[in-house]
Amino acid sequence: MNSDLSCLQVKDIGEQGLLERLQRFCPPDVIGDDAAVLTTNPNQSLVVTTDMLVNGVHFSDVTTSPEDAGWRAAAANLSDLAAMGAFPLGITVGLGLPGDVSVNWVERLYQGMTECLQKYHVPIVGGDIVRSPITTLAITAFGEATPDFIIRRSAAQIGDAIVVTGIHGASRAGLELLLHPEIGQNIKTEEKAALITAHQRPNPRLDVIPILRAILKSQSKIQNPKSKIAVAGMDSSDGLADAVLQICRASRVGAVLEYSQITIPKAFEKWLTAEQGREYTLYGGEDFELVLCLPQDTAETLVKQLSTGAAIIGTITPGLTVLLHDQEQKLRDQILTLNQGFKHFTK
Amino acid sequence: MNSDLSCLQVKDIGEQGLLERLQRFCPPDVIGDDAAVLTTNPNQSLVVTTDMLVNGVHFSDVTTSPEDAGWRAAAANLSDLAAMGAFPLGITVGLGLPGDVSVNWVERLYQGMTECLQKYHVPIVGGDIVRSPITTLAITAFGEATPDFIIRRSAAQIGDAIVVTGIHGASRAGLELLLHPEIGQNIKTEEKAALITAHQRPNPRLDVIPILRAILKSQSKIQNPKSKIAVAGMDSSDGLADAVLQICRASRVGAVLEYSQITIPKAFEKWLTAEQGREYTLYGGEDFELVLCLPQDTAETLVKQLSTGAAIIGTITPGLTVLLHDQEQKLRDQILTLNQGFKHFTK
Repeated sequence: MNSDLSCLQVKDIGEQGLLERLQRFCPPDVIGDDAAVLTTNPNQSLVVTTDMLVNGVHFSDVTTSPEDAGWRAAAANLSDLAAMGAFPLGITVGLGLPGDVSVNWVERLYQGMTECLQKYHVPIVGGDIVRSPITTLAITAFGEATPDFIIRRSAAQIGDAIVVTGIHGASRAGLELLLHPEIGQNIKTEEKAALITAHQRPNPRLDVIPILRAILKSQSKIQNPKSKIAVAGMDSSDGLADAVLQICRASRVGAVLEYSQITIPKAFEKWLTAEQGREYTLYGGEDFELVLCLPQDTAETLVKQLSTGAAIIGTITPGLTVLLHDQEQKLRDQILTLNQGFKHFTK
Repeated sequence: MNSDLSCLQVKDIGEQGLLERLQRFCPPDVIGDDAAVLTTNPNQSLVVTTDMLVNGVHFSDVTTSPEDAGWRAAAANLSDLAAMGAFPLGITVGLGLPGDVSVNWVERLYQGMTECLQKYHVPIVGGDIVRSPITTLAITAFGEATPDFIIRRSAAQIGDAIVVTGIHGASRAGLELLLHPEIGQNIKTEEKAALITAHQRPNPRLDVIPILRAILKSQSKIQNPKSKIAVAGMDSSDGLADAVLQICRASRVGAVLEYSQITIPKAFEKWLTAEQGREYTLYGGEDFELVLCLPQDTAETLVKQLSTGAAIIGTITPGLTVLLHDQEQKLRDQILTLNQGFKHFTK
């Protein structure tokens, strides 16, 4: 770390340190969720999220085709909208391109991006193309939500059930199979393909939002029309453990996770040690599922309506500790801690 | 130009050529204005615009302080919203940074950006910071408009008056004074400062929108409550001539511009030839004024309410020719043509 403050460089404090310093330029209430919320009138909120992706840092032709890079970029942004409980309205795409990039590469990137977007009927509504020494993609996605149904990280309450909407670890396993094709020989072709698809073509869980809204609406009516069921949550783009830890930190609560309730892909046992499987499941990231905290009965109703892998995996508790417990005692109890995230700028 | 289509590179077809090829991935109705319009309900439109700025291409520490780079980036995006008749709601900022950029530089960039934004009460509502080999800034601005008051390039009608909201050429002259400080010796200090400020701290003309809305509302009432006065226009970020030509092309009309009606900064005559002054005024760019096409009486009322430099500078005509005429006959009539814009990718 440089001691002369005026010479302090970005790599000395990292992305997180820089974000903290820049927060004084932003209104305090827009920080800390997957996307920002602007309430334009009493019945409508505008939800906005933005991502930058740089060649060699966030995608690479070595492991990712341009179509998959495009799909994944679109999926990550739509997932941030799903994580807020918003319906997508559109995205804008900023592209920085070196002159020697092939037009075909750019068209394939757009092809992948629109394949993902069309699945959710989301248009590309604008963009900018500029010259740059390095291929850079800037996506901003915006959606709409009703102010009384916005999912926030800070809304978890003691006693809430913790729900995951699907399987974790598959994307990380798929990446491993792409990087080391030789290691997947014990796995069935279709299992292998499923893991690779989980990495290359993740699905943002926008499908969960109308289901959740309908459940909340019907349960609110039965219980008390004036009371509102708060839903906490975020997406698991940086991993399942990270999502639970972030929610707990923002909500100032703790959690107990029951490891035996977390679905582990079957193919894992043919190929990975139990420890590796656990690492991928808890810390793999990029599965783009939702991690939600809800009252127990709401959680049960929701899980029943979702498909493979959706489960109640734990409970929100008092205190600030996130404990991983294994009922089957294959695993010793462990306290999970928030790692410092991707230290993008550290040498 | 490369003959093998699969090897066609971005520099072979340029930004414009690439944009045309990528349009098939976007809905046809969102292309061609300063920003995209999404109508979320019958009374409200969401207006979105996005810009990418790359160090060495769009800004440089040689001519621009980080504060000014930040101000200009914010101003350009707010100007695109003004050009659509929208009120800004917020912006998102994506930042790509090499690790050795000083934190101070980034904070000064944000300082300049927020100075401009605060003038118009616009918050930064989100962003992303990533590692990149080159400093890159991606801004998306969004605003709201009412569907029956959106300014479009394609709405100019024969007989409309062409209005500019202020002086053109000042920004380009300011840049010249920054690049060559030795040439400004005949100019008064305050004139010099005004031109340099025009370049470093341009003001998006958001102030024009409520004035224009009020005029349209009162005139509609008098004439016919059901009829709506269409306003065509865009901002003059790429120059006054470019704006008139773009509007005419989009509206399939022509124009006659009266050169003697265009305000030329007084300092120009002390320093520039008449021809240079004309070049700066017509083609200089980055003044971020609005160029609007309106019925004559609406135009006259509007100009009276605006300050220095606002003027009716011509008329929309049948045909597709944009003619520059000089009543004072200092200048021969000339036909203006759309140049191919900034050929960012050409070698």
